[in-house]
Amino acid sequence: MVWVMHIIASVFINDDESGLHQDYGQWLEKLALHEPINQYRHNDTGEDNADAHMQRQIMGREVVVAVTDGKLDFGPWEQILYGEFDGRRRKQVLIKIIG
Amino acid sequence: MVWVMHIIASVFINDDESGLHQDYGQWLEKLALHEPINQYRHNDTGEDNADAHMQRQIMGREVVVAVTDGKLDFGPWEQILYGEFDGRRRKQVLIKIIG
Amino acid sequence: MVWVMHIIASVFINDDESGLHQDYGQWLEKLALHEPINQYRHNDTGEDNADAHMQRQIMGREVVVAVTDGKLDFGPWEQILYGEFDGRRRKQVLIKIIG
Repeated sequence: MVWVMHIIASVFINDDESGLHQDYGQWLEKLALHEPINQYRHNDTGEDNADAHMQRQIMGREVVVAVTDGKLDFGPWEQILYGEFDGRRRKQVLIKIIG
Repeated sequence: MVWVMHIIASVFINDDESGLHQDYGQWLEKLALHEPINQYRHNDTGEDNADAHMQRQIMGREVVVAVTDGKLDFGPWEQILYGEFDGRRRKQVLIKIIG
Repeated sequence: MVWVMHIIASVFINDDESGLHQDYGQWLEKLALHEPINQYRHNDTGEDNADAHMQRQIMGREVVVAVTDGKLDFGPWEQILYGEFDGRRRKQVLIKIIG
């Protein structure tokens, strides 16, 4: 299991293809516009990252991956990816294994 | 692990800030409009909450939180939140601990 | 726990109602348009399924369901569903039980 420890970032599993990552960025920006900043009540608190909170909900906070014989059970092309929607703070990821 | 037991509600993890919650509501309403009700085939069954089924998919059904030394491994500001998209029925949440 | 092993498909939990499934299809198509194909950089690699990668992020990759006394802890109407957003390859689903 992998968790991102921040509310404006995501870990998720998909294809590690640079064109796709660019597409995700543009798509998320379209679904939750950054501007105008004053459209979000959260930004009244002095933040300007309400859109990043939205985008993180779409992309997800945690991934749970099965392990068989010491190998992660991934489908073809699957990779664990990290997405950051507001690039200003140091980030931390938590990994735990149970079974 | 926390699960919401209803298909038109969510548990999720984010900042417990009231402006942000208001933003989520408006954002979800924009992504999945309630009106006109007859745009959804699900509503032909006599329901009027197809939009709530959509919104629950974005916000998620379950959260998995690691526990270390008896404390939930949260990042800064993280809280488990409950969101309801159709306010008419009594709701139930399930919590389980494994390890 | 149930995982879909493909990056352009989802397992998720919701109502097994055919009108709702049709609504999901139209809603996802609206949130991530298939056409024009050249709007996505991922499709420059020769693929035409970038939209399916987006749709899979909304609907999710895995479900975690608790088991009590040998029964899945579902809320009313909950079913595990499988959604496919690009119908051309054989698919595989992985199920594991821990506890």
